[in-house]
Amino acid sequence: MEGSVRIDAPVETTDSGGETPAVAKTGTLYGVGMGPGDPDFLTVKAMRVLEHAPVLVHFCKRGKRGNARTIADAVVCDPTREFPLAYPYTTELHPDHPEYVAALAGFYDEAAGRLADHLGAGRDVAILSEGDPFFYGSFMHLWRRLKDRFPVEVIPGVTGMSGCWTRAGTPITWGDDVLTILPATLPRAALVERMKGTDAAVIMKLGRHLPKVRGVLAETGFLARAVYVERGTMAGERVVPLAEKEDDVAPYFSMVLVPGEGRRP
Amino acid sequence: MEGSVRIDAPVETTDSGGETPAVAKTGTLYGVGMGPGDPDFLTVKAMRVLEHAPVLVHFCKRGKRGNARTIADAVVCDPTREFPLAYPYTTELHPDHPEYVAALAGFYDEAAGRLADHLGAGRDVAILSEGDPFFYGSFMHLWRRLKDRFPVEVIPGVTGMSGCWTRAGTPITWGDDVLTILPATLPRAALVERMKGTDAAVIMKLGRHLPKVRGVLAETGFLARAVYVERGTMAGERVVPLAEKEDDVAPYFSMVLVPGEGRRP
Repeated sequence: MEGSVRIDAPVETTDSGGETPAVAKTGTLYGVGMGPGDPDFLTVKAMRVLEHAPVLVHFCKRGKRGNARTIADAVVCDPTREFPLAYPYTTELHPDHPEYVAALAGFYDEAAGRLADHLGAGRDVAILSEGDPFFYGSFMHLWRRLKDRFPVEVIPGVTGMSGCWTRAGTPITWGDDVLTILPATLPRAALVERMKGTDAAVIMKLGRHLPKVRGVLAETGFLARAVYVERGTMAGERVVPLAEKEDDVAPYFSMVLVPGEGRRP
Repeated sequence: MEGSVRIDAPVETTDSGGETPAVAKTGTLYGVGMGPGDPDFLTVKAMRVLEHAPVLVHFCKRGKRGNARTIADAVVCDPTREFPLAYPYTTELHPDHPEYVAALAGFYDEAAGRLADHLGAGRDVAILSEGDPFFYGSFMHLWRRLKDRFPVEVIPGVTGMSGCWTRAGTPITWGDDVLTILPATLPRAALVERMKGTDAAVIMKLGRHLPKVRGVLAETGFLARAVYVERGTMAGERVVPLAEKEDDVAPYFSMVLVPGEGRRP
């Protein structure tokens, strides 16, 4: 894929007056929060970086497009400056499986190497990150590998969960509500334990874990007010009380919201 | 204050063909997420509404400007279409004090009435909301009073906490980390209970509760990795490891972050 990237931006140099060789200025690594899906929820700063960065990369599943890239359609129409980073696995293996960990580490190492080549040559690189880059973002794995070698700038984004509770038409926290954010991938007992005593919750990474999540919410008394949101702010959006959702199909871009009921003067 | 608002936008009418009287179209209530502070983190949609809404309102402390309004400086320079809503109290009384509850309810009722006059006359009203409108926002109290009478559109925003962890340069959640969001106003025992078993935390509404929060984090083993962030993304920003912060002064726009340490392939 990299062969298709043509990048002609000049490398800026520092003129040191002839005493020492001119030093090439490195590029900046941008983590760009792409927001929840609707490109209207991109930030002003994200738009600016997307318009000007000479290298744009996005994560995706092999053979698929990647949602962060789809959000960027509103801004980016220059395929010569971008390339995808395709995960070696997504849901085929458990994240704790040694083979998965090794493959993913190798994938991030290799991707970081490719980005380092661009950065070292003085080209800014923007990594398109769904939602907010520092909130469960794959960006973080490249950031961790590159942050000590290159300048980094992170652009926060509207999270997917904000997009979902906005579209569900329900405030998530009132007054002194405690909000707990839980990956549905946790063991059932851990989910029950964390739901007890919270006032509000967001349960992400549903996938095949939806039946377990239903059970946890029923056991802890939250099922009646839980809302299922699929593809919030995107095409194909769906909002339905969880108790009324008849099947247990939940794509990657879905979550369950349990709105708080705190102080309302 | 309302006397200074001059609003000359025509009321749109629906021509019903002469059979029935023309029906005035009501305005739309917008909850505009203003983001964490830096106006570069406003969304494209928020910018558009701020530029065009005929009536803009913001919450503030009596005699002060209000941070949401300061963020809008980058966009709004037309005082003829805006007015402030000044809280009757902020920190003078405990939020559960009956006098506080009554005064605040009266304040929201009166403010909702003023907005209803504009909406009923066909003028869109935008309420500037720090961070995200449905995440601990005062907007919600007006939304609750007006949502069944007028069309509403909420524009999600980058939260203050996203702005803070971005500026602290630390991802907040990795892998399957559980994130707990806690108001520092809770009793000490409740804070300890919620911190036990979480992987990451954001503790907001610090104010005079900072000594209690320090104690809770020390007791639960999180003090060493806690970061204090004040005015994240704004002028006067300050980021310091909590253990190195020598005083216990914490303004309204400050929070403590406890970054997660989850899976990092």
